[in-house]
Amino acid sequence: MILAKVTGHVVATQKSDELRGCNLLLVTAIGDDQTLIKDKTYVAVDSVGAGTGDLVLVEEYFALNKDRYKAMSIVAIVEKVQRDC
Amino acid sequence: MILAKVTGHVVATQKSDELRGCNLLLVTAIGDDQTLIKDKTYVAVDSVGAGTGDLVLVEEYFALNKDRYKAMSIVAIVEKVQRDC
Amino acid sequence: MILAKVTGHVVATQKSDELRGCNLLLVTAIGDDQTLIKDKTYVAVDSVGAGTGDLVLVEEYFALNKDRYKAMSIVAIVEKVQRDC
Amino acid sequence: MILAKVTGHVVATQKSDELRGCNLLLVTAIGDDQTLIKDKTYVAVDSVGAGTGDLVLVEEYFALNKDRYKAMSIVAIVEKVQRDC
Amino acid sequence: MILAKVTGHVVATQKSDELRGCNLLLVTAIGDDQTLIKDKTYVAVDSVGAGTGDLVLVEEYFALNKDRYKAMSIVAIVEKVQRDC
Repeated sequence: MILAKVTGHVVATQKSDELRGCNLLLVTAIGDDQTLIKDKTYVAVDSVGAGTGDLVLVEEYFALNKDRYKAMSIVAIVEKVQRDC
Repeated sequence: MILAKVTGHVVATQKSDELRGCNLLLVTAIGDDQTLIKDKTYVAVDSVGAGTGDLVLVEEYFALNKDRYKAMSIVAIVEKVQRDC
Repeated sequence: MILAKVTGHVVATQKSDELRGCNLLLVTAIGDDQTLIKDKTYVAVDSVGAGTGDLVLVEEYFALNKDRYKAMSIVAIVEKVQRDC
Repeated sequence: MILAKVTGHVVATQKSDELRGCNLLLVTAIGDDQTLIKDKTYVAVDSVGAGTGDLVLVEEYFALNKDRYKAMSIVAIVEKVQRDC
Repeated sequence: MILAKVTGHVVATQKSDELRGCNLLLVTAIGDDQTLIKDKTYVAVDSVGAGTGDLVLVEEYFALNKDRYKAMSIVAIVEKVQRDC
């Protein structure tokens, strides 16, 4: 999983059935200094109620619809990142 | 999923059975400034009726033919990308 | 899927059972200018009868032997790449 | 699998059900010289009782909850890396 | 699959059950000139009896233990790489 920030959202009405009802959020990966990394922005399905500005955990393949479809998803909202070394 | 633009198509008559009847489109990833990224062009199966110039969502592994074959696919046509931060 | 050129082949007698009888071809990814990209050479299982010099579509995980093993495979021979934008 | 060092942990109370009860550790990939690689920090589920400072093996997709969810996981604590050539 | 050289091994007693009895080898990807690529060293499960110095084919996700766990694995020992173009 990668640490990312929710930076916006995407509007798409014409989409595959598996994505119907899904909230599609823009997420941008963050580096060691917690700033956004250029050109590392993806679109992820929200499964935890995240909003713009939230620090989140993003998993590349999360199963929707009984495993038939795996989409990049937000799987957790991060409250604290503790880096010790 | 990544944001990409449909930049063309591919003609291939000799192909694996799982790809029969599939529309094979060229998709090029776009960066934060919405321009095409050099050498980030892929071929994706169209599942939503996309055409050249469309902004689309591309998923790396979308299941075809009862999960036996997972191919990079266009899963949504994007109408609007709202970046807030 | 990526566009690649068949650039050679690999000989391997000691291999996992799932690869028995498979033709192992060297494939090199091509860039937007259709030239080979340095250090982007992979080994793919041929499923369509491709040969050296052919332009092909390569899929990272194609199921062999009842889904137990997914290997990088050549899934189509490309006749024409039409880039419109 | 990649060699990585446990460099911290993440606190997340709002998370997908599949991650409930999981220990979420920060892991940073190490290079050939065994030092941490910049901006190669991920979050992995701990399955072996690893702690900060441990050298570990990280696998990108490890199945949790009957295969429905595959998350990046720590699958071994490394005692010794023997490089011969 | 990628071409790699076995460059060493890893000792790990505390590991997930799926890796019990597995031989964990260090593999380093090779470039077009057949030399080792810096910082492209991984740990792979050996399934073909490979040893240090061997040129091998490495597959990212090879199923162990009835598909529940897929680990990077060595799937073939390469005798000859024939590059024609």
